[in-house]
Amino acid sequence: MQIFVDAFGGDHAPLEIIKGCIEAKKTLPTDITLVGDTAKIKDCAEKNGLDISGLSILQADAVFEMETQPTEILKSRKDTSMAVGLRALAEGKGDAFVSAGSTGALLVGATFLVKRIHGVKRPVIGGVMPSVDKPFILVDTGANVECTVPMLCQFARLGNIYMQKILGVEKPRVALANIGAEATKGTKLQVEAYAALSEMSDICFTGNIEVRDIAFGKADVIVADGFTGNVILKMYEGVAKMITNELKAMFKKNSLSMLSYLGVKSGMDAFKAKMDYKKYGGAPIIGVEKTVIKAHGSSDAYAIQNAIRQAVTCVQGDMPGQIRAALQAEKSEADT
Amino acid sequence: MQIFVDAFGGDHAPLEIIKGCIEAKKTLPTDITLVGDTAKIKDCAEKNGLDISGLSILQADAVFEMETQPTEILKSRKDTSMAVGLRALAEGKGDAFVSAGSTGALLVGATFLVKRIHGVKRPVIGGVMPSVDKPFILVDTGANVECTVPMLCQFARLGNIYMQKILGVEKPRVALANIGAEATKGTKLQVEAYAALSEMSDICFTGNIEVRDIAFGKADVIVADGFTGNVILKMYEGVAKMITNELKAMFKKNSLSMLSYLGVKSGMDAFKAKMDYKKYGGAPIIGVEKTVIKAHGSSDAYAIQNAIRQAVTCVQGDMPGQIRAALQAEKSEADT
Repeated sequence: MQIFVDAFGGDHAPLEIIKGCIEAKKTLPTDITLVGDTAKIKDCAEKNGLDISGLSILQADAVFEMETQPTEILKSRKDTSMAVGLRALAEGKGDAFVSAGSTGALLVGATFLVKRIHGVKRPVIGGVMPSVDKPFILVDTGANVECTVPMLCQFARLGNIYMQKILGVEKPRVALANIGAEATKGTKLQVEAYAALSEMSDICFTGNIEVRDIAFGKADVIVADGFTGNVILKMYEGVAKMITNELKAMFKKNSLSMLSYLGVKSGMDAFKAKMDYKKYGGAPIIGVEKTVIKAHGSSDAYAIQNAIRQAVTCVQGDMPGQIRAALQAEKSEADT
Repeated sequence: MQIFVDAFGGDHAPLEIIKGCIEAKKTLPTDITLVGDTAKIKDCAEKNGLDISGLSILQADAVFEMETQPTEILKSRKDTSMAVGLRALAEGKGDAFVSAGSTGALLVGATFLVKRIHGVKRPVIGGVMPSVDKPFILVDTGANVECTVPMLCQFARLGNIYMQKILGVEKPRVALANIGAEATKGTKLQVEAYAALSEMSDICFTGNIEVRDIAFGKADVIVADGFTGNVILKMYEGVAKMITNELKAMFKKNSLSMLSYLGVKSGMDAFKAKMDYKKYGGAPIIGVEKTVIKAHGSSDAYAIQNAIRQAVTCVQGDMPGQIRAALQAEKSEADT
């Protein structure tokens, strides 16, 4: 197995990326190739006393900047580490690509360089997120802001396969993100999607999930258009961050509060661990011919390592092949 | 001033409603009339040793059940406390109506009994919500799931007036809830609304607010279609509740953790107070001829008391009159 990793994507590139790759190589059954400027990678490793002898390097001259228009990955930014890595993947030189760089560019690159699986309307960015119970996948988290009912049904199918084949949930509960439990709730899109999802025989559709229940883990696959999905994802992050900030300030207030922290430290640590999105790796771009993982922009070595682990699991589970098979079923169903 | 209060709306009616009215009457410059079955109100007061001699009662035979179709308030459920209160308001017998009952029914009743102010496209349910900084108003929180650009512009105007005239924010920062800061982000609705909001001369439009920043209080008026607004509101509630539950369990775990709680109790209490939506009262239905306040379904006496206080402020500030004036300005602008 060969996994390409964008050495120059994300806020902490290349150092944390290199570190993450070194750690991943130690424990995972795969070869790893850093994609980026060879001299800079070697220089960074040397300066930080890192041994990269176990990793390969694929030369790429440039870096895809966050503020660049995503479509430029196909035009003026063909020589960036992201574009070079995706092309190598498309050419069959490896099995997966991991990047913490621009989400938009990675999506465009995955769609047009690695290419969609036949029958996929639009690839989806699946967000694997924590809840107080089990993790769930949110499809879509922002790749497709305007959606149709057939797109949402396909998102459900793609998310269902991911949870079944990659995260090992035998019978994922698939729910539609909505503002009420009743079938008549939401906009025209949700009302029609509810009806269409109810008729799908290859998923276990459990109806609407009220967004206030999302953090409580009441579904395994949550279906949403990309706009709504992104609102859910960012409200989750934002509210959690606000409360965490307030708690930190509260515990740091004085010596008594600092002492108090010790009494709940183990509980706090357990909660933090449960809610740590980093351990789930990144967001898979589902529906393209090879495994492509978007790691969080702020990924550290630990997050990168987990994104590579996730990529390995996707390759081992033959995610693209599973999707091809499921879409074949979709087609047969449509034909009958 | 005369404020009608639905004695039979909400999870804790009529007891908490009666208690809230008694408290409100003590401190606020208004007469208060409980609307509902006289015998039941008197019976509840007597059983609980409450003195309701300072309150009036307006007889209504029935109760609007939560599961009833909202439009039934105009048809088969005309004799409910909600319908009777709204009609009395429409007939000029009072200045405001407060209910913790069905949101949908209250919206339908406010729109068709109390009636829209001339020029209002659709009344909006404004959610006054806490942030770590100051409270803000979210317009809409769910009254209008499908919206047009002119509707969003009017929501901005209505929310702006509320913050200025009722909550006393001199120059409210009005922002559009979106999935990114750039003018090109979001669906067609957000992109077009951004352009239209930018051209409004009577509000201070500060651009998009990324939803992850909402809890940090970076805007005073947040504009959203009712579907998105409801997702924001419920994600806020849901994530906060999930974390609060986890914290409670953590502090209750053993004697050491319970002891630790004492060391941060004052900080916790201050944070809880800052985040307590109850102190802001309820959600005003903005755009109708009289003040109508939707209190939270789970309102206790304290929340009801604050909803009545909010109603008093709206009456004192002549909210309907302020809106009439602003819409006149909107019309003049359109005419030029």
